[in-house]
Amino acid sequence: MAKFKLILLGAGRVGTAFLEILARKRKILEEKYNLEYELVGISDLKYGSILDNDGIPINKILKTIREKGRFIDNTSSKEDIDNITLIKSSDSNLLIETTWSNIKDGEPALTHILSSIRLGKHVVTTNKGPFAVAYKKIIDEAKKHNVFVRFEGTVLSGTPVISLARECLAGCEIIEIQGILNGTTNYILTRMEEGISFNEALREAQKLGYAETDPSSDIDGWDAAAKAVILANSIMNGNLTINDVFREGIRNISTRYIQENIEKGRRTKLLANIIKEGKKIYVEVKPRDLPISHPLSSVMGPTNAVTFKTDHLNRVTIIGPGAGPIEAAQALVMDMITINNYLEWR
Amino acid sequence: MAKFKLILLGAGRVGTAFLEILARKRKILEEKYNLEYELVGISDLKYGSILDNDGIPINKILKTIREKGRFIDNTSSKEDIDNITLIKSSDSNLLIETTWSNIKDGEPALTHILSSIRLGKHVVTTNKGPFAVAYKKIIDEAKKHNVFVRFEGTVLSGTPVISLARECLAGCEIIEIQGILNGTTNYILTRMEEGISFNEALREAQKLGYAETDPSSDIDGWDAAAKAVILANSIMNGNLTINDVFREGIRNISTRYIQENIEKGRRTKLLANIIKEGKKIYVEVKPRDLPISHPLSSVMGPTNAVTFKTDHLNRVTIIGPGAGPIEAAQALVMDMITINNYLEWR
Repeated sequence: MAKFKLILLGAGRVGTAFLEILARKRKILEEKYNLEYELVGISDLKYGSILDNDGIPINKILKTIREKGRFIDNTSSKEDIDNITLIKSSDSNLLIETTWSNIKDGEPALTHILSSIRLGKHVVTTNKGPFAVAYKKIIDEAKKHNVFVRFEGTVLSGTPVISLARECLAGCEIIEIQGILNGTTNYILTRMEEGISFNEALREAQKLGYAETDPSSDIDGWDAAAKAVILANSIMNGNLTINDVFREGIRNISTRYIQENIEKGRRTKLLANIIKEGKKIYVEVKPRDLPISHPLSSVMGPTNAVTFKTDHLNRVTIIGPGAGPIEAAQALVMDMITINNYLEWR
Repeated sequence: MAKFKLILLGAGRVGTAFLEILARKRKILEEKYNLEYELVGISDLKYGSILDNDGIPINKILKTIREKGRFIDNTSSKEDIDNITLIKSSDSNLLIETTWSNIKDGEPALTHILSSIRLGKHVVTTNKGPFAVAYKKIIDEAKKHNVFVRFEGTVLSGTPVISLARECLAGCEIIEIQGILNGTTNYILTRMEEGISFNEALREAQKLGYAETDPSSDIDGWDAAAKAVILANSIMNGNLTINDVFREGIRNISTRYIQENIEKGRRTKLLANIIKEGKKIYVEVKPRDLPISHPLSSVMGPTNAVTFKTDHLNRVTIIGPGAGPIEAAQALVMDMITINNYLEWR
């Protein structure tokens, strides 16, 4: 009997990468982490939806997506089960939420997550939106219904930042968080230092799949601001939304400015700063000129990094990828393993 | 009723820093992590020993150490309870081991740890010795007796490396580990780059309290080798001892060599390399000339760092302090919180 009966909402690049890991690593995940799972429901705007409490073969799903561009073999019909019905499916006990990220009102993911929690089903997600606009509501509901909600993949994809701070630095007070939270802008700034213009660098980033088609989310700092809010709330026990962030993007920075800075021993980075003073938390995202010797200065290209300033350890920095389908899927797998570890002792 | 009834063996700089955190943060540790504790036994070569199943006031212990150089007020007598008797104390359920680290045979800490495990009592320690010489034995006994043994502080003190790899990167395969694991040698190499000789730099490190009086443990790579073995065993499921490490120290490196390297864009670091190939794990500690752009190149002074090469995330690097009493004590606290988190679900 599988322990986790999964509903997966969203089978885009992250959802598919997640299914691929589940299919490929089933044996090792069971042997090493005692993790057992079965997919009982899946839905995607493009591919349709299926609910089967007896279990949906993951390999077959991946094959029909590849070959038919949908979940089911039967080309004459398409099951049509809405997401809330899927979540309510009697057998499921864990929602994996990877639908699109909406940082305006968090929907539809917010409703998916809250519905799952209220039914006593755990949630694991990479979806920033709900946590950037309604963090406290989600956490309060999860406590009330005694379920786990984990969201490591919302910040720096699979590079563990939230669990690092909350679990591996448990006992420390975290006074300040500084981070390069957006890979696209860091890539653009790196390329501008090498001499190309902002527009050329942006086009490159789009071609490489780093930047969104509408680049505002990246270059105006919205994405970094959403992630900064999630860090502030989850690590410093804040109750902020994305509107509380002082936000400035990189649109107005010239290649010449960046190159002149380098000659002065300084490097321009789009930096998130989160500072706790008493009960108040201040969050800003803006371009900063760091000395070359600063640990975050040497983080180049699409790589991301976060530095925690703490009472017991002074500064601890983690550097790793900030995005990517398999990287985000890794966060989902890790969060599942963590929940499993806690539940095993019941 | 306190959940954890602690026996603390060793009240040197780490043990004392640990008691200070327990005294200072009692309220926050209980509120934030549901962590409750009571000291029921303590022993140190210098200060004597006490056993009191009704609880020993931590603040009073710290005060008598400071004022009288011993644990008890009563100057006419000194309780004399051996460590094994303390461990056997009926009420204790967690051993905190911070006695001296012996990388030859792990004793006396190894016996302390095994005795505790065999009595079904959990263990948290910063003591490298036992894990560098008898890792598999300890872990096998812990499994058999269903107790937790955690040892984050054995590598990079409170900078979380073992829990980062095992918990926050769970689901990833870790293929390679590269690290600057010894602060003294990294400090010496940093100072030599600034122009002073090996001997001067070593004397400075000793003066600053980084280096041992017998410097061989640091500069001949023994300390880094012990830590590398612990990483290989705990993260890659190895069964190595310190004798399996190819080890070369920094005694024969000249200031001139280091400075010439810098001119060529390379920086010399004492690096631990742990590589898994199939079932075999190779561990070496030796000076390496890294390109300046390498992430570990910019780790200077007594700071330490570890890079994990993984299947899902490529490279993830953590940078932080590698030593220090409060830093090591932080690891003890974190490990206690983690055990508590697992036990709460029982």
